Formats: sequence, C-alpha cells, structure tokens
Amino acid sequence: MPVLVMKFGGTSVANLDRIRRAAKRIGVEVAKGYDVIVIVSAMSGQTNKLVGYVEETSPLFDAREYDAVVSSGENVTAGLMALTLQEMDIPARSWQGWQVPLLTTSAHSQARIEEIPTDNINAKFGEGMRVAVVAGFQGISPEGRITTLGRGGSDTTAVAFAAAFDAERCDIYTDVDGVYTTDPRICSKARKLDRIAFEEMLELASLGAKVLQTRSVELAMRYKVKLRVLSSFEEQSDEAGTLVCDEEEIMESNVVSGVAYSRDEAKMTLLSVADRPGIASIIFGCLSDAGVNVDMIVQNISEEGRTDMTFSLPTDQVKRAEKALAELKASGGLNFSDLITDMDVAKISVVGIGMRSQSGVAAKMFKVLSDEGINIKVITTSEIKISVLIDRKYLELAVQALHDAFDLDKAA
Amino acid sequence: MPVLVMKFGGTSVANLDRIRRAAKRIGVEVAKGYDVIVIVSAMSGQTNKLVGYVEETSPLFDAREYDAVVSSGENVTAGLMALTLQEMDIPARSWQGWQVPLLTTSAHSQARIEEIPTDNINAKFGEGMRVAVVAGFQGISPEGRITTLGRGGSDTTAVAFAAAFDAERCDIYTDVDGVYTTDPRICSKARKLDRIAFEEMLELASLGAKVLQTRSVELAMRYKVKLRVLSSFEEQSDEAGTLVCDEEEIMESNVVSGVAYSRDEAKMTLLSVADRPGIASIIFGCLSDAGVNVDMIVQNISEEGRTDMTFSLPTDQVKRAEKALAELKASGGLNFSDLITDMDVAKISVVGIGMRSQSGVAAKMFKVLSDEGINIKVITTSEIKISVLIDRKYLELAVQALHDAFDLDKAA
Repeated sequence: MPVLVMKFGGTSVANLDRIRRAAKRIGVEVAKGYDVIVIVSAMSGQTNKLVGYVEETSPLFDAREYDAVVSSGENVTAGLMALTLQEMDIPARSWQGWQVPLLTTSAHSQARIEEIPTDNINAKFGEGMRVAVVAGFQGISPEGRITTLGRGGSDTTAVAFAAAFDAERCDIYTDVDGVYTTDPRICSKARKLDRIAFEEMLELASLGAKVLQTRSVELAMRYKVKLRVLSSFEEQSDEAGTLVCDEEEIMESNVVSGVAYSRDEAKMTLLSVADRPGIASIIFGCLSDAGVNVDMIVQNISEEGRTDMTFSLPTDQVKRAEKALAELKASGGLNFSDLITDMDVAKISVVGIGMRSQSGVAAKMFKVLSDEGINIKVITTSEIKISVLIDRKYLELAVQALHDAFDLDKAA
Repeated sequence: MPVLVMKFGGTSVANLDRIRRAAKRIGVEVAKGYDVIVIVSAMSGQTNKLVGYVEETSPLFDAREYDAVVSSGENVTAGLMALTLQEMDIPARSWQGWQVPLLTTSAHSQARIEEIPTDNINAKFGEGMRVAVVAGFQGISPEGRITTLGRGGSDTTAVAFAAAFDAERCDIYTDVDGVYTTDPRICSKARKLDRIAFEEMLELASLGAKVLQTRSVELAMRYKVKLRVLSSFEEQSDEAGTLVCDEEEIMESNVVSGVAYSRDEAKMTLLSVADRPGIASIIFGCLSDAGVNVDMIVQNISEEGRTDMTFSLPTDQVKRAEKALAELKASGGLNFSDLITDMDVAKISVVGIGMRSQSGVAAKMFKVLSDEGINIKVITTSEIKISVLIDRKYLELAVQALHDAFDLDKAA
C-alpha cells in the first residue's frame, strides 16, 4: 500500500482533544488506503518547559543529558496517539527514536540523521498495522545515547521518513494554514501562498520563518519529497495549505515572495585581530567546535595589519561563544583587544527566486529602510535573498514597510 | 570502591531545588569514597498525570503503550540529576532503562526484572565516573519495548541494582522519616520504628503501607540487601530512618508491630457457581490472565452443588475483572447466576513476627472492632498477620482503635 507521512506539531497535539482530532485526520487517510507514518511533536509548551529545567540546572549543559531530558515529551504524545488510534480500531503502535532505530551523528542537540532502517516498521505494516506513530525530534547516536535534531527537528524526522519509505507525500500539520508572505502576527496584510519553491522555503526557514525547520526543506529538496504545510484546525480539501515544490511547478510569482525576520539575534565584534591568512579559520573553527551557529560575517578594512571581525549568532549561543573565544585567547591561539556583544539586533530578509532575473531589489530595500530612518548594521546577500541586521526595536516597522513596498499583499 | 545505592522518590525530586538538595546528599556519600548508583522517580505528580492521560484516552489500554508513556517522567529527572551533579563537579551520567539495559519480562505495566548487566556502568566507574543516575521504574522487554515495574517500581529498581552491584546498602529517600506503626495521617499516635524485620515490612508493604513497594522488600530479603528508609528533608545521621533487616538483628519487639490499611479495595462475589474441583482454578486463572491481582478469597458453604465465591481486588481493576468474567461466561467456560461488586470496602491488617509465639491476637482484634460496632466482611490470616475487610467509612476508626489496643504508641 502507498505510504503517507503526516506530521503533527505541538499545538496539534496540545491536549487529548487535539490528539483525537489529529487521529480523525489520520483515519481519513487510512480509509483512503494509505499506510501512514505519523510523526508527533511534544505537547506544546512541554519542550520549552524541559529546556527551561535544563538551562536553570546547568547553563553550559552537557548536551547528552539535555537530549535525554528534552526528548521525553515526544515519547508521551507518540504513546497517546497510538492509544487514540487503537480506540478508533485502527491498528497502531508507537516507536521511540532508538526503537526504529533512527540513527544519527553524535552531535548532541544538533544531530543529523544518518540512516532510517525501514525493515522493522515495514514488517509491522505487513502484519496489518496501519499506522506507525514515531516520536519526532529524536534519534540514537553510535554510542547508544539519545540525540535530538535541534528545535523543530520533528519536521526533519517527517521528511526523512518520507524519503526513506518513498512516501507519496509528507503533510506537515501545524497551527497555521500555510506559508505566508510574512508573519501575520506582525503584518496584518500578510497573504497565504498556494505554492512556494523549495529554494525560497529554504531561505525563509533558515531566516527565521518558524513554519518549517530548515533542514527538513533541504532534505525534501534533495529527495524530491512533496511537502505540504497545512492547518490541523480546519477542514481539509486536497488543495489546502501551501505546497512546497520545484520552481518549475510554479507558474507566476512576484520578484520577492516573502519577508522573513529573526528576532533573537546577537552581533559580536572582535576588535583588533591580526589580519593574516588563516585568522578567520581559527576564529570560526573554534566557534564551530563550541557548537555556535555563526550566521552573517563581516570583516572590516584592515589598518596597520589589524582588523575587526563582526559576526551574528542566536542570542542563546552568546555565552557559549564568549567562553570559547576567551579560552582561545587564554591559550594563545588568538590575540584580540576586546570583544563587543550587541544583544539587541534583529535580522530582516527579503526572499524571491525572481531576484535572479531582476535587478534593483537590494537598492529598493535599502531605500525603504532609509526612508523609515532605520540604520543598517550588517548586510549579506545571496542569489535569491538580501538580509540586513538592524536594531531590534525597528523589526515590526521594517517588515511592514518592506511588505508594502514589494506589493506582497497582491498575488502575481 | 564500595558501591552505595540511593533512591529518591517523587517528592524528593519534585522540583529543581529538591533535586539540588538530593544531589548534595549524594555528594556527601561520594566524598566518603562510595561509587554511587542513584535511582530516581519522576517528579511527584508527573506519573499520575501521565496515567491520567492514558486512562482518559483508552480505559482498557494497550499496556505496551501505557509503559511507553508513563516511563517518560523518570527520564527527565535522571537527566536533570546528572546535570545537577555535573554542576557540582561530580562526574555523573544518566541511564534510561533500555540503556543499562535493565532486562525484564514482557508483562507490561507489571514487569519483573530478569537481569541487570553491570559491565556497562562498571566500565564508566572504572573511567572515573562517580555517580550513575538511573531512571527508575522502567526496563526493556525481550521484544525491545519499554516495560514498567508497577507503581512504586523505583524501589524495586533500587534494590535490584543494590543486589546486582553488591552494594553496601540501599538507602530509600522519601517524604517520611521512616516506617511507622501505622499511617500518621490517620492516627496521631503513630510511632517511628528504628528497625523492622523483612517479613513484617513485606506484609506491611503488600497490605498498603505506601513506604516501599512489596517486591522491593522481597528482593531485599532474598539477596540480603541492607535497606534503609529515610527522609530526604532532614539532616541525616548514620542512625536516621528505619533499617529493614533480618529479625535476628532486632532485640525486642511488640507482639504487633504495625497496623496497615488499604483504602481502595473492592469485593466481588460470584453467585451460584458449580462446587466442583477445578472451578477456583478456572476463575482465578482467568483473572490472572487478565492482569487482575486478586487478594483475599473466600468460598462459602456449598448448597445443592452450588457455592458463592468472594474475592477482593484493587478498585481500579474491577472493570478489567468484570470484562474477563463476562467473557468467560459468554464462552461457556464458567456458569454463575450473578456477579455482585462492592466498591466501598477497605482492608485493615495487624502485623507482627511476635504473633508466631503469642496466641489471642486475632480474638483481641475481632473484639476491638466489635466493640466499635464495625462489621467484619472477610477475614484472612497468615503466620504473622491478620487482615479483615470492613466498610470503608470505618477505616480511620478501626486503625485508631487497634493502634491503641495493641499499645503501638509505646516501644517494646
């Protein structure tokens, strides 16, 4: 029988009523003849609570113990979903990550999926089981310890299962009814997109649009997994939500498809480091080893053989970065005069595959921000996106102004 | 280095502050030179919450999914305890049941421990780890699914680890400062015992004294594990709490050591079953297969080849028992005219190894209850205990009257 993957996020399994509602959706697909693999998140708020416990207990925590703690919420919803389906007379059972086993790297709290053996679950489908409920977000390392895939990792679990089981489609049920031109909570004119290209979705996801984890989009693009984002709170037609697909499948689109933002950014500047080959590799190698995800990097003009190095990173990794750089300095690995941290910045990005063929987007973006009196601190660009760092207090203003300027409230 | 097992119950790890307090106690033992194995329960209330989810989702639940859900609370506290110890610079890591692996039978929700391999944890002790934090209550079945050991199962986990690692002692930290002559909440004259014999503790535990799980006491008795029950909320001396030990180690004791009660009992009577050999085996075999723990059994005098069969069981297993007996009747396996269930009974027991050598205890017990106007519904006796079923509304009255009558407020 064809396989369908359905993923339910935290708000879609927030309590027993919502789990029942999700189970009914699953029942509809089972009745159509699919063998269904369901990926569940933890009940909403649960993972945040567990992360809070860990951070309060140990600010620079052992990531192996972090993973052991924060993965537990998904185990609860997986079991409850299996029980709910059984009550509806649908043969179902739960799997935890280590039972599949979903094999990952040892990069705790940020592990990558290495392999998903299918024999175990397929054998159960062969025996008449109709739904395999899998705890999302978690796997097992080569050392036999529990790993997690990073926040939002259940999306990646879902796409990886869809690829491994050659699923017909991967439906991501969430609390929004699709992908929007920007976050409707801060811009009332935001508009739902019927389709969006993998590349655009990838940029939006990595830029802070919370609807899908970046790596899930990467995986879907690589393995050609048809990915649909839709609401678990509305009656569904086959055309509901937003389909993430190849750009060839999109007839018309605006030059800019969306405006993304990331609120929890920090900017760090290393003052007066030696301007010589290899210095960037030392700095960012050290940060990478410490598990810091550096995003934008700017190197200022050199004076007298010294230069300043600026980079951005998530605010919650600042402590980790400061510790790593202080140790590097103490060990003589790097010389710098000071380290300046700005915790109050945000990143705004405009994204669109149309930028490839149309020029002037960057110039227009900078003018819009300038007209609003917003100072740009750092700029980076790629083929289909332009990102800037600005003071966090201007975030809403910037998003609204750019949404208006690029006519995102109107379909192409 | 000598090994010490320390078990912390739900109230002792109810929040991060209490986990820190427990970690300090552990630190004291580490400083004395012990390698410590810590067994943790879930934060208090957590397991009840999860059991509630399961029962609301599916009243006659699949016990495999029940286990997958309710075992998750211990994973959280195990990780948090390891992190807390690490913050105190004590090398520690957590183990979930399947990681040890703690091998059990497949009797889900009531599994028995089959084996605890020690090589994995001992190897880490060899590498300098000082504390192994193990999630209590859970194990893994031969089929690779998560099992649990029954409510209070973390005590059994602790004693089993103490036996497997040949520990010097097994300290059970809880919210009371020892074993009492009866429950202080319903009898203000209850007195803490310094020592109690394994056999007495076993009877008290199986009779409803919540301080230790019955099987943990059985295990401790069989493997001669020195078991100490003490409070995690008080400063500890080496003589704190109650030591559960061989009766030879107890110099003097009262005839009766304690009065136990069990509030959530039900009484079921099968009316007019055939009075022939094998009938009891059919009835109680069927109930056992359904996972019902029958306690007291009484068979009335036979009339015209028919008899009534009465038994007691926990109230939460009544539905299960009714279903099993109805199915047995429907399949022609057993003929009876009616099944009467009384949900409002309680069991009161007096326990003491002194009963072996002193007669008249039963007569005195029945007179005390009779003087209070309490009707006895069912009686069972063993070498060191007498139990009766009475109306639940007389529970407190009966306990207080018996405690007075047997002078339990005074030491021997």
